[in-house]
Amino acid sequence: MAILEQITGPRDLDGLTREQLVELAAEIRAFLIREVSRTGGHLGPNLGVVELTLAMHRVFDSPRDAFVFDTGHQSYVHKLLTGRQDFSRLRQKGGLAGYPQRAESEHDIVESSHASSSLSWADGISRAFDITGQHDRTVVAVVGDGALTGGMTWEALNNISDDNRRRLVIVVNDNGRSYAPTIGGMARFLNGVRTQRSYTSLRGTSERLFSRFGHPGRAVYRGVRGATHGFLTRFVNNEVLYSNLDIKYLGPIDGHDQEALEEAMQQARDFGAPVIVHVITQKGQGFDPAINDEADQFHAVGQIDPETGESIASAGRPSWTSVFADELVSIAREDDRVVGITAAMLRPTGLDRLAALDASRVLDVGIAEQHAVTTAAGLAFGGLHPVVAIYATFVNRAFDQVLMDVALHKAGVTFVLDRAGVTGPDGPSHHGMWDLALLQFVPGIRLAAPRDAARLEEALREAVAVDDAPTVIRYPKGSVPNQLDAVRRTDDGVDVLLEAPHRDVLLIAIGAFAHLAMDVAQRVQAQGIGVTVVDPRWVVPVPASIVELSRDHRIVITLEDGVRVGGIGTRVRQDLRAAGVDTPVDELGLPDAFIDHAERGEILEDAGLSAQVIARNIIQQVLGTGRVPIARPLPDEQELRLESDASVQEPAAD
Amino acid sequence: MAILEQITGPRDLDGLTREQLVELAAEIRAFLIREVSRTGGHLGPNLGVVELTLAMHRVFDSPRDAFVFDTGHQSYVHKLLTGRQDFSRLRQKGGLAGYPQRAESEHDIVESSHASSSLSWADGISRAFDITGQHDRTVVAVVGDGALTGGMTWEALNNISDDNRRRLVIVVNDNGRSYAPTIGGMARFLNGVRTQRSYTSLRGTSERLFSRFGHPGRAVYRGVRGATHGFLTRFVNNEVLYSNLDIKYLGPIDGHDQEALEEAMQQARDFGAPVIVHVITQKGQGFDPAINDEADQFHAVGQIDPETGESIASAGRPSWTSVFADELVSIAREDDRVVGITAAMLRPTGLDRLAALDASRVLDVGIAEQHAVTTAAGLAFGGLHPVVAIYATFVNRAFDQVLMDVALHKAGVTFVLDRAGVTGPDGPSHHGMWDLALLQFVPGIRLAAPRDAARLEEALREAVAVDDAPTVIRYPKGSVPNQLDAVRRTDDGVDVLLEAPHRDVLLIAIGAFAHLAMDVAQRVQAQGIGVTVVDPRWVVPVPASIVELSRDHRIVITLEDGVRVGGIGTRVRQDLRAAGVDTPVDELGLPDAFIDHAERGEILEDAGLSAQVIARNIIQQVLGTGRVPIARPLPDEQELRLESDASVQEPAAD
Repeated sequence: MAILEQITGPRDLDGLTREQLVELAAEIRAFLIREVSRTGGHLGPNLGVVELTLAMHRVFDSPRDAFVFDTGHQSYVHKLLTGRQDFSRLRQKGGLAGYPQRAESEHDIVESSHASSSLSWADGISRAFDITGQHDRTVVAVVGDGALTGGMTWEALNNISDDNRRRLVIVVNDNGRSYAPTIGGMARFLNGVRTQRSYTSLRGTSERLFSRFGHPGRAVYRGVRGATHGFLTRFVNNEVLYSNLDIKYLGPIDGHDQEALEEAMQQARDFGAPVIVHVITQKGQGFDPAINDEADQFHAVGQIDPETGESIASAGRPSWTSVFADELVSIAREDDRVVGITAAMLRPTGLDRLAALDASRVLDVGIAEQHAVTTAAGLAFGGLHPVVAIYATFVNRAFDQVLMDVALHKAGVTFVLDRAGVTGPDGPSHHGMWDLALLQFVPGIRLAAPRDAARLEEALREAVAVDDAPTVIRYPKGSVPNQLDAVRRTDDGVDVLLEAPHRDVLLIAIGAFAHLAMDVAQRVQAQGIGVTVVDPRWVVPVPASIVELSRDHRIVITLEDGVRVGGIGTRVRQDLRAAGVDTPVDELGLPDAFIDHAERGEILEDAGLSAQVIARNIIQQVLGTGRVPIARPLPDEQELRLESDASVQEPAAD
Repeated sequence: MAILEQITGPRDLDGLTREQLVELAAEIRAFLIREVSRTGGHLGPNLGVVELTLAMHRVFDSPRDAFVFDTGHQSYVHKLLTGRQDFSRLRQKGGLAGYPQRAESEHDIVESSHASSSLSWADGISRAFDITGQHDRTVVAVVGDGALTGGMTWEALNNISDDNRRRLVIVVNDNGRSYAPTIGGMARFLNGVRTQRSYTSLRGTSERLFSRFGHPGRAVYRGVRGATHGFLTRFVNNEVLYSNLDIKYLGPIDGHDQEALEEAMQQARDFGAPVIVHVITQKGQGFDPAINDEADQFHAVGQIDPETGESIASAGRPSWTSVFADELVSIAREDDRVVGITAAMLRPTGLDRLAALDASRVLDVGIAEQHAVTTAAGLAFGGLHPVVAIYATFVNRAFDQVLMDVALHKAGVTFVLDRAGVTGPDGPSHHGMWDLALLQFVPGIRLAAPRDAARLEEALREAVAVDDAPTVIRYPKGSVPNQLDAVRRTDDGVDVLLEAPHRDVLLIAIGAFAHLAMDVAQRVQAQGIGVTVVDPRWVVPVPASIVELSRDHRIVITLEDGVRVGGIGTRVRQDLRAAGVDTPVDELGLPDAFIDHAERGEILEDAGLSAQVIARNIIQQVLGTGRVPIARPLPDEQELRLESDASVQEPAAD
């Protein structure tokens, strides 16, 4: 790591020779493989952009020039070159974020990891530079070919093409994939570009390629040198990548040819108007296990063996995803109407198993959540029952479509929201913490939050049977917990998990928080307080028996793995009030804030959502003055402990 | 109307001669001008699609073939041809909807009026027809060129191009406008198509045009007759409208040439794979006042003189929009950082006035709300303060961008949400009733709801001064009400509008509902009950003085022109509970349902949001048992009146 260690900032790259750059690239790859193998993270994408990132930092001058990474999981190399070489706690609490983060560095701008937004950011920043007279600053956006399937990029390009004065370089990092191979007509076109010239011919000259694509590789640069506006325009007229938008096009460039990349970047920088630089890269470059992985080329990995790429995670309980995947296949075998839709995440959502049963029954629409939802409404109109499988955080991108296309039209569409609630190491834009608050006010919707594998299977069958309204099933990341059986089920489907002789406290547990609620209940009951624990299973609309049970208790606590404001708890309390039930309700959930990366357990602890803290507060409220609502932000933890230690006995850990 | 009256369904068109069709088109235009002049409605767009709609219904067989209209305001002709010729109560309660509505006719499919969704619908429906073996059914989507600026169309086209077996006809109704002329690179391209051949040359033959665009007008059809797949492919390769997506293209067709249209439709119908038919129409065709209207060609009109097109509405109080528009100009004169952003609605949002001051400070991004919001975050990063002016219903389309791009990045962006709350005649997809529930849980956001013109001006200045968080100002459709002065303002900016010797009832009025609250208060006070009315002005975060005032009252009522579930009322109540204030809270707002078209007053009345009903319920609750929470769905109105008449005196109307 002789060279890498000396790079404290981008300008340290200036004096390096060609040979040193090649060596540095090798050092960076070795670093990434070694470090990310230990912590987990986005390995494949970063191995693909080593030379590209080096070229950007050599040719441009960050932070004066603004770098915008689309889905910043491809920013590890950028971090290494901007003074951040301690990857030991990558994506862990207090360690480096897995995405750009402004708090880490002035070189980071866009923190969100939702795809397809970078060109809109870049459009805005470059316009602002133009309007405010900062004409020496260039904006460089790096966007993957996968992100181009998202409609936002079209909206941005349509606007960018309107104005030719700004310094805006759009690097299309084309590796043919999002998680999996990119889909759609655009991807076929890009594939054509890639496959019509081989890598070996890239450094040569080929009249055939020139006439069709311009000289590939470094030859492009040579052809373009001294080009007039008109010359570059010819590229775009000969070519058809967004050609009707009249944005200048440069490429394709070999994304692992340092010299060709830098020459193209210089050309783009000096052009003085928006230009697309089309760079062909190989995801996982330099690491054979990644390149040879057909599924996603090590897009994101857990801990792996740095030599073989084998996962070193122990095989544990099945994941929520796999329980869903298997049950969907089982349902689909019986019901021809059931089809699956994914937005470029076939395997992460588990729909690969349905595709293995019958590929024609799974639709991958690309990174296009809006289209996924509305086309599902169309499929339902045509007689099918679509199951849209998506991460909870991404349903935010299609709220209007859920509301206007599915719910308004009473379409029988089932949404399966994976990675709901606190997810952990991916940070604020990956927590699925707004889905409950967001979807609870969609008229006619029905929301289920299963607590274990059996309830997920049950809910999925119930959801697919509903053909006149949207249904939603949400569950967290990770493994399913132990099965938790009900002591009884009410007529309207509420599972009572625990009952006591006294009806003091009613704990309404949403989804997998049922286990947390049981833990809380044990601690509270140890103080002689009667606790009832219920799992409504379907949380919206609120079952009537929840209202009736609330009537009989002294306090009601709702527990949800989602944002507290506007959450399911508020819905429960409104239904109580409407029914004339004035039992006090405390809604426990996640704070109204963005939550940084950390382990799920750490985040819940910080949010006061541990059994110990919740139990202590309930006990205080029931035995104490009753004037301390437990939803109040806690005062110093130590102080509370002093107050309550006398009366609270911690139950033994189970 | 000799012919039109005889058309009871599409098949009645089959036997008409060319001459009768021309006569029918004239009759339809006369009908639309006469009827829509009386009721108001979308006149210009429907005058433009008379021949197109006739051709669709003659060539295709609705409802076996599925017609999908993008933003169905262009469906009036379709309604006339499918048995709906009573336009006397268009857009009024109980009358025809201004958009397609399934409850009206089996010929209607997509009810939502949010643009750019139709191709996703069509993709889904045609896939379902294919999968379920309904191979004789064709889907016909009609999409305006304006809607093509929305990213959803790109997402859909990218998917449609993936599959060549389905019967899917995409009619691009290209009139060069959304409300105003369509923007962006794509629009420039389409303009090139239009302007390179004049209407007079359309029926001729021109080798030059043929080589570039194929024969225009009916000549296209003749050229295409008997075409092979390969021939149509050549069109797309020679042309560049979505050419990289490899969707077959037919056009351009003169959208007012009945014969050319029908021939093109037949060709498209028989092609057996997705095909784009590019039709050039004139918005307002056949009505000179519309054609001559530069601004929006009578996109949507109120009551007008059917001869001159002059508006016959009386000049009343200024609109909320115009108060905003003028104040923004005033602020912008003082503050260079302030710029405006609109999504294809320059005039309807009032940003035309800022554009008149300085066109370079207003950005029209097309129908592209996602881009509008994210590019605003970019502008803010670059040192500006963007004001995104948008209808409240459309902010739903960019929720993820508000959350992830603006709020997460603490960008100083101001959102001005016009037409918030119940709007009236445009029906379920135009009510801005979800914005408060949706935005209240965006971390760090600040929401203002001004009650009158002075407060709107004040809030706008306060909002533009915030550079580290999103700010939102929302106000309803229509004219500003009378100014309502506060009796005092608390230290944290809450306006107390009314105080009484007793503190019985605290009415927390959101925005323009302050006037409703004052009316309620008068009625309640007439019973000797003490009422305090406050307007928090900034409703999120909830000001501390709201919590303190609540502590002193017996009941708290929140009043908001938005959906009750998850609304501001729930937020107030959570803050009360967190502060240990257990005063009962009733949240009044709109029901958790889609609301049909009717006058705003009628809708509020139906929702129980009249002063009379609210006052009666408060009185019952305070004087009566106290066990009837007023948020409970009301029993039969008559019954209530019997119970309460003895104790309730209606105050005289003011």
